Amino acid sequence: MLEAERVDVLFAPEAAEMYPNGSVTTVVVSEVGDRLDGASRPGHFTGVATIVAKLFHVVGPARAYFGQKDAAQLAVLRQMVRDLNFDVELVGCAIVRDKDGLALSSRNKYLSAIEREQALVLHRTLLRLEQMIAEGERQSLTLARKGMETLNAVAGMRVDYLAIVDADTLLPTTSAETGMLVAVAAYVGSTRLIDNFMVA
Amino acid sequence: MLEAERVDVLFAPEAAEMYPNGSVTTVVVSEVGDRLDGASRPGHFTGVATIVAKLFHVVGPARAYFGQKDAAQLAVLRQMVRDLNFDVELVGCAIVRDKDGLALSSRNKYLSAIEREQALVLHRTLLRLEQMIAEGERQSLTLARKGMETLNAVAGMRVDYLAIVDADTLLPTTSAETGMLVAVAAYVGSTRLIDNFMVA
Repeated sequence: MLEAERVDVLFAPEAAEMYPNGSVTTVVVSEVGDRLDGASRPGHFTGVATIVAKLFHVVGPARAYFGQKDAAQLAVLRQMVRDLNFDVELVGCAIVRDKDGLALSSRNKYLSAIEREQALVLHRTLLRLEQMIAEGERQSLTLARKGMETLNAVAGMRVDYLAIVDADTLLPTTSAETGMLVAVAAYVGSTRLIDNFMVA
Repeated sequence: MLEAERVDVLFAPEAAEMYPNGSVTTVVVSEVGDRLDGASRPGHFTGVATIVAKLFHVVGPARAYFGQKDAAQLAVLRQMVRDLNFDVELVGCAIVRDKDGLALSSRNKYLSAIEREQALVLHRTLLRLEQMIAEGERQSLTLARKGMETLNAVAGMRVDYLAIVDADTLLPTTSAETGMLVAVAAYVGSTRLIDNFMVA
């Protein structure tokens, strides 16, 4: 796959190479790191920030690319880069979707055929909210209520969050304005999926 | 002073330059960071590790110099550099002493004439322990007992710790062997002073 993309170098270290003597040091991004997925998965973004800091030091990149599907992760890493003065440019990469609209994720392989069908409601919900916003609805409360209705109409769906937040701070906003993030996380069976879009 | 030392460049940023928008990110060195001065001053080494990480990113030094008087700080920073793969060499600088033996410290200016006199017991204690070790005494318990006796004989002295530890992990050792750290911290009046030596 990488050869087809004409990739020259792949750096994919084993855990033993990155942690030869274990590690007791962590990079903690508080506040933004404790919101959205950080609220659902305590400590998760500390692990992410720490390994990304290590990789930045080992590789010394001018630019680093992260998917916008993990919008909270991108916000946390932007905060880390700003706060710790890393000399690296973070580039967000647009969400890539399957033909049916499901955002690509390594986790999609855990979905049964039925769950896969159910999972489509994430994108469907976001499309509906995007349309409501395009038609002039800006109230976060109204949008969230409609979104939850759409999500909960699908059996086997357990919503973790549906949020309209500032894309940098991940703090909830009362109104969905340009540049803000509409993000959803839900369990389909035992698989946790996320998706989002930025308000145009 | 710096001109006399033929220093070409001084980077001494103001807080506003280092924290233009505040900061919510910290570098936490657990275990070693929670021992000795880290035990007495919770969170202290998190502040140290965070600002040093920032300075490393801003300056990009090949080598960075830290005084061995702050032995715990040096251990914490060595751990951070190893754990986060910083590409920088840490160089420890020998303790510099006044003519009377008191380790130089920006805090010495807070000492009254009497306190200054009392403070000399730190170095005197370390010299006595160094001599005992040279004469063959290796038992940490025996050494610590003798050291506490010497320190407590001086009025106005409040010992924070007297410890014989591994210089890397700062964990107590039962025996004072070559390369290990004998470290003391004590309040003279309201001024906290530290000093140490490495077992030869």
